[in-house]
Amino acid sequence: MLEELKKEVFNANLELVKQNLVIYTWGNVSGIDRENNLIVIKPSGVSYDKITSNDMVIVDFDGKVIEGNLRPSSDTPTHIELYKKFKNIGGIVHTHSMYATSWAQAGRDIPAYGTTHADYFYGDIPCTRLLTKEEIENEYEKNTGKIIIEKFENIDEMAIPGVICSGHGPFAWGKNPSEAVYNAKVLEICAQMAYYTELISNKKSRIKQDLLDKHYFRKHGSNAYYGQNLKEM
Amino acid sequence: MLEELKKEVFNANLELVKQNLVIYTWGNVSGIDRENNLIVIKPSGVSYDKITSNDMVIVDFDGKVIEGNLRPSSDTPTHIELYKKFKNIGGIVHTHSMYATSWAQAGRDIPAYGTTHADYFYGDIPCTRLLTKEEIENEYEKNTGKIIIEKFENIDEMAIPGVICSGHGPFAWGKNPSEAVYNAKVLEICAQMAYYTELISNKKSRIKQDLLDKHYFRKHGSNAYYGQNLKEM
Amino acid sequence: MLEELKKEVFNANLELVKQNLVIYTWGNVSGIDRENNLIVIKPSGVSYDKITSNDMVIVDFDGKVIEGNLRPSSDTPTHIELYKKFKNIGGIVHTHSMYATSWAQAGRDIPAYGTTHADYFYGDIPCTRLLTKEEIENEYEKNTGKIIIEKFENIDEMAIPGVICSGHGPFAWGKNPSEAVYNAKVLEICAQMAYYTELISNKKSRIKQDLLDKHYFRKHGSNAYYGQNLKEM
Amino acid sequence: MLEELKKEVFNANLELVKQNLVIYTWGNVSGIDRENNLIVIKPSGVSYDKITSNDMVIVDFDGKVIEGNLRPSSDTPTHIELYKKFKNIGGIVHTHSMYATSWAQAGRDIPAYGTTHADYFYGDIPCTRLLTKEEIENEYEKNTGKIIIEKFENIDEMAIPGVICSGHGPFAWGKNPSEAVYNAKVLEICAQMAYYTELISNKKSRIKQDLLDKHYFRKHGSNAYYGQNLKEM
Repeated sequence: MLEELKKEVFNANLELVKQNLVIYTWGNVSGIDRENNLIVIKPSGVSYDKITSNDMVIVDFDGKVIEGNLRPSSDTPTHIELYKKFKNIGGIVHTHSMYATSWAQAGRDIPAYGTTHADYFYGDIPCTRLLTKEEIENEYEKNTGKIIIEKFENIDEMAIPGVICSGHGPFAWGKNPSEAVYNAKVLEICAQMAYYTELISNKKSRIKQDLLDKHYFRKHGSNAYYGQNLKEM
Repeated sequence: MLEELKKEVFNANLELVKQNLVIYTWGNVSGIDRENNLIVIKPSGVSYDKITSNDMVIVDFDGKVIEGNLRPSSDTPTHIELYKKFKNIGGIVHTHSMYATSWAQAGRDIPAYGTTHADYFYGDIPCTRLLTKEEIENEYEKNTGKIIIEKFENIDEMAIPGVICSGHGPFAWGKNPSEAVYNAKVLEICAQMAYYTELISNKKSRIKQDLLDKHYFRKHGSNAYYGQNLKEM
Repeated sequence: MLEELKKEVFNANLELVKQNLVIYTWGNVSGIDRENNLIVIKPSGVSYDKITSNDMVIVDFDGKVIEGNLRPSSDTPTHIELYKKFKNIGGIVHTHSMYATSWAQAGRDIPAYGTTHADYFYGDIPCTRLLTKEEIENEYEKNTGKIIIEKFENIDEMAIPGVICSGHGPFAWGKNPSEAVYNAKVLEICAQMAYYTELISNKKSRIKQDLLDKHYFRKHGSNAYYGQNLKEM
Repeated sequence: MLEELKKEVFNANLELVKQNLVIYTWGNVSGIDRENNLIVIKPSGVSYDKITSNDMVIVDFDGKVIEGNLRPSSDTPTHIELYKKFKNIGGIVHTHSMYATSWAQAGRDIPAYGTTHADYFYGDIPCTRLLTKEEIENEYEKNTGKIIIEKFENIDEMAIPGVICSGHGPFAWGKNPSEAVYNAKVLEICAQMAYYTELISNKKSRIKQDLLDKHYFRKHGSNAYYGQNLKEM
């Protein structure tokens, strides 16, 4: 079942490798069938060159495996929490990409320093708080989802389609698995350029609100005029 | 029409990818036919592996599309301003290349620290001022061109064939589209080495004027003696 | 003799190159046959594209060449010391990989800053003390092994499968040559991200013990649940 | 004439590209026929993919072209000075490799921080003084050679086979063109790791003399025991 979505999720996982966002097996992409609340996700700890579209695992909102011979990604409960709360997203990506992870390890939001950032993220990319001892020991992956949601209480997840988890690494999402990978790549690029900017900047001031607005809204929303078609990304 | 120039601009766009100066669709090259004041430019937001020479768009100095089925790059008004003012340039490049963009995000000129820089840029690569709220809200891309021109009021644009726009990224130019890409690459390399230099330098002094002169003029002007032919770059 | 192990060690050496961990000939992998206490190791200073599985050298615990026409790696005495002391390891890797070596040159432990590190190393990756003049002048390579062992007096070598030698570079190990290469790669990645983290972090605090425990033990030991099979890595 | 040497120099130039040491045409390798004091060198400013072994230029110690249709590298007078003074070298390389050039731009010696450095360079890699106005304006390239020689007044050029010129970039040399390229690569790697080391080190102390001696002399001189053959590098 869900053959199309399985293919989409599989291809998005391969794209993650092609974009240099994963080392070994440290990353995963999922997609969701909103009609049936079924999630298609990469199996856990399996090398990318050993899997096919058919190895994708289908789970429901309780994490129960509906189809598939392999165990789903250990981060599946995080994906589930996000899908439950963020109703408009269709794909989620988790990686340990180098620069985003380093910001996570530093426990800092990735500052919106320029228009590259503003083109895709409408403000700083937030860093979650640390989990408590209890949250780590019981249902760690589910609680990882919960603190992301907590962080987005006053943030529009469609305007800032990514987050970094303190001490851990980034999650990104989008309308579908492919857009989620795209956003994970942009997040990494912004993290890398913010890193360089920090080290040579004398003032470290954020991009001005006017310019942030201009760049974000020339690519997003009803007045967008970048690209060929308002519908495509 | 302008088949030759369309081919030239198309190839220069591919070269941009080959030189690792663009991620996704974040870059564009244009060329100009000075006889008819017609500009050939990459279409907006289209993937480089999906376009051919025939997809290049032709616009006039008012930004009106003269030929082409796709929308021209959203940065077209910036290109137009530069072509109008800088009469001797034949090609323009805009990228979000990593190091140049980071200097732009830091809001700093790229210091002329060595002879690699001096070989192609006769002094610091300037960073523009920030645009005002009004300049951003009305004709943003055109105003981007205007503040570049403002910055070059006392700078020879043929001696310093590039600029970085504060909070945004680099523009570079040259006698033709291919030379513009070459200068965009040199600008990025100089930005990268200036970044390294800053972090290990105790004094951060610019290259001495004598050495700047020597290196610039052994490659440029009537007494140049680098390379095989004074006419080629 | 030991044809299987020779093939394994040879392939692990090639993997080292593929993972960008060696420049020229600066690296070596060995494996051990625990039944006979025989070590298979790369020959010294020979280019990776000029050797085959048959060029691997077999030595015993005294460093005596048992089989092979080429001289074994000059670091062989270090490998021998480690195999003698660390009874559960089956493969050892030495490289001069860039970031790990830079931490070694700085003479600092690589701090456990995040979960990527915690997934494979249960705490900081230690840096040995400097060798004394005497230790350098007499049996330098053997003494290199001895100060590693000294450093691990109170550290479980299976929980922290790697070390950096002050002023020199990293050694990593594992259950077999292939896992040793895997750990050498992870060590380098952790070194790289710790480097980035240091430069942008305001506090530089280690990963919390709870999170370190969680990540390490979800991949290792009897309660591990990452991946498809508790037996594979 | 000198067909063998021309082939050797040509291949060394290609190796320079393969080792990522040159961008565009910014680098050159030469070799010398000591019997006739004839130097074979790359032509100036010509793209590496457009030249063959036959395009190598032969010049004598006065810089006079003895054979070849193209102009020799503009740095030829520097090479000549070095060959005249350093009697045991057979090949010279000049590049603008990124990290070595950044140290040159910072005007600092590259500190000997570890054994990778000690394996090939017996101490800091020196940075020349700046040239005076007069030295720049008259016979700049020849004077570049002279200040390198000045710097090596008390340094053995065979023990430290490379230098960086203040504000400019590195030169390296060796027994033949191929070894010169090898040393240029090692110089760049050491420059890169010294850069990383500086940024994370608390003390920035050089490698201890004992360890420097040990590593240098296990690879060089009559007691060397690294590799398969004392004669090869």
